[in-house]
Amino acid sequence: MITLKNKPGVSFVSSVCGKKEFDGPLGDKFDMHSEDDTFGKKSFEAAEQEMQRTAFALALHKSGLRERDIGAIFAGDLMNQCTASSYGLLQYDVPYFGLFGACSTMAEAMILAAICVDGGYYRRCAALACSHNCTAQRQFRYPVEYGGQRTPTAQWTVTGAGCALIDGGGVMKITEALPGRAVDKKIKDANNMGAAMAPAAADTLLRYFRESGSDPYDFDMIVTGDLGREGHSITKELCAYSGVDLGERYLDFGMLIYDETQDVHSGGSGCGCSAIGLAAFLYEKFRSGECNEALFIGTGALMSPLSLFQGESIPGIAHLLRFSSGRQ
Amino acid sequence: MITLKNKPGVSFVSSVCGKKEFDGPLGDKFDMHSEDDTFGKKSFEAAEQEMQRTAFALALHKSGLRERDIGAIFAGDLMNQCTASSYGLLQYDVPYFGLFGACSTMAEAMILAAICVDGGYYRRCAALACSHNCTAQRQFRYPVEYGGQRTPTAQWTVTGAGCALIDGGGVMKITEALPGRAVDKKIKDANNMGAAMAPAAADTLLRYFRESGSDPYDFDMIVTGDLGREGHSITKELCAYSGVDLGERYLDFGMLIYDETQDVHSGGSGCGCSAIGLAAFLYEKFRSGECNEALFIGTGALMSPLSLFQGESIPGIAHLLRFSSGRQ
Repeated sequence: MITLKNKPGVSFVSSVCGKKEFDGPLGDKFDMHSEDDTFGKKSFEAAEQEMQRTAFALALHKSGLRERDIGAIFAGDLMNQCTASSYGLLQYDVPYFGLFGACSTMAEAMILAAICVDGGYYRRCAALACSHNCTAQRQFRYPVEYGGQRTPTAQWTVTGAGCALIDGGGVMKITEALPGRAVDKKIKDANNMGAAMAPAAADTLLRYFRESGSDPYDFDMIVTGDLGREGHSITKELCAYSGVDLGERYLDFGMLIYDETQDVHSGGSGCGCSAIGLAAFLYEKFRSGECNEALFIGTGALMSPLSLFQGESIPGIAHLLRFSSGRQ
Repeated sequence: MITLKNKPGVSFVSSVCGKKEFDGPLGDKFDMHSEDDTFGKKSFEAAEQEMQRTAFALALHKSGLRERDIGAIFAGDLMNQCTASSYGLLQYDVPYFGLFGACSTMAEAMILAAICVDGGYYRRCAALACSHNCTAQRQFRYPVEYGGQRTPTAQWTVTGAGCALIDGGGVMKITEALPGRAVDKKIKDANNMGAAMAPAAADTLLRYFRESGSDPYDFDMIVTGDLGREGHSITKELCAYSGVDLGERYLDFGMLIYDETQDVHSGGSGCGCSAIGLAAFLYEKFRSGECNEALFIGTGALMSPLSLFQGESIPGIAHLLRFSSGRQ
């Protein structure tokens, strides 16, 4: 477990999303959306880059900062060779650390940014992650035009990009972090990412409670990144087996972004899911004072279409951050 | 520029490579090689995973350490969704940070590992990167069986995996680091990665000399990751335009791994190029006392086949580390 002695904080956040996310329960909390998910671009890949660029630009705008005020960017996405981030953020002359943590990328980015700020290596860093439903469909499943049938455990890749600026300020202090280990329970169903990632979420959570001496009752909220209904219920069950009752405070961003009428089956997923969930939901709960202690567990499935074609199973990973408002 | 006050050091290194690398001028310096590049596996993707696994296992073996002694692994590769690293290192119960810095990944991993050790967040971290010629050919160009003609500026993706353990010990101390910014000079020729990456290398080098107040004469060696002959000469020229003469001390791992009889055209490339070059060449120079001050600049091209198909240019990035032996 990593303790961040100087308590770096999330000082500003931004979120950009697509139409379906805007139509969901958190719709009015997102900073910006595109009515047709293209963000005015000719390809969905270019749209995803534009989303990532816009998220960073918005965070700068909201904070009144300029690019030279940002020490480094930690960013990633789901596209092959993480091009949504590298092309999207290209115009900014800021040192760039490219990450691949699959859908856990936002948590991975925030941990590394927090370490750099806490240790005094940078005054301020940005953490970003994004995903786009149509680029993910084309790359991991079928092109959207194909209209493939989805199984009940399938999730809907969120079209969204989120940014968090981490420095000495803010109401959401990062006090502890627990980077995850890859966990492989031999799930091979690419339409059940929740089941593939849930064991990693439970592994990280149980390890955290053990190492920190805390328990779920110490938190107002415990939120996983994108397990969806299926993964949420498996994580709850796995923790219960080990005698840890996560209770009603345990939420999942994949279940918060869409409602039941939106035909997303098990819920939202993708790097953008936890990124915009964190910005539009969890950060807001801290700002409004509704939440003072929370755990955020970014969850990722470390597979590729090729690894599945070659018969490999899907390892999961889950990175944890503890947020505290400092209020009593 | 980042100053690492506690001077974390590279205490152990390991390198694993293929037949062509073993036949090259550094051949006898690598720890292990496969005679047929398969490492006993059925697919080249599985071979690359096995290489990465072996590199980590060898580093543990050489150091006498066990996996529980490693605080975190920072690793990446060129494959889609970085599966060589996540699957290759899956058996180890060590917190895992997946990175994508294209061929600059070894430098990116070493910077982040050094920060974590220097700041006291972990006692010891591992940095790894790998690439495999046949997985890269299949993914980025043509399957090897196709026998496509290569242009004179084309490079040969190195089959290799390297690991560096970073802690308080070792003869190669990491004293400073300068993470790179993405630089895009609108190169669109996927067979000329040297030209795409050289402007980033020059940008980072010139920025480093300016910020640190040092000049090339302060170093025994300045080594870039995988620019090859083409990129090496462009970098030299770009620095000369700015009044900085890199001189004979400026080398490139892509030019050191193969000799002129090996038909690799402009030289070696890939994440594995700088990883095994660092382990088998630069680390050895520090150990033998031939080198006391050096700069290592990991270079990467942040493109994907899809980004090229869509007409995008190839941005480069270059991350720098300064190594000192501490000897006078």
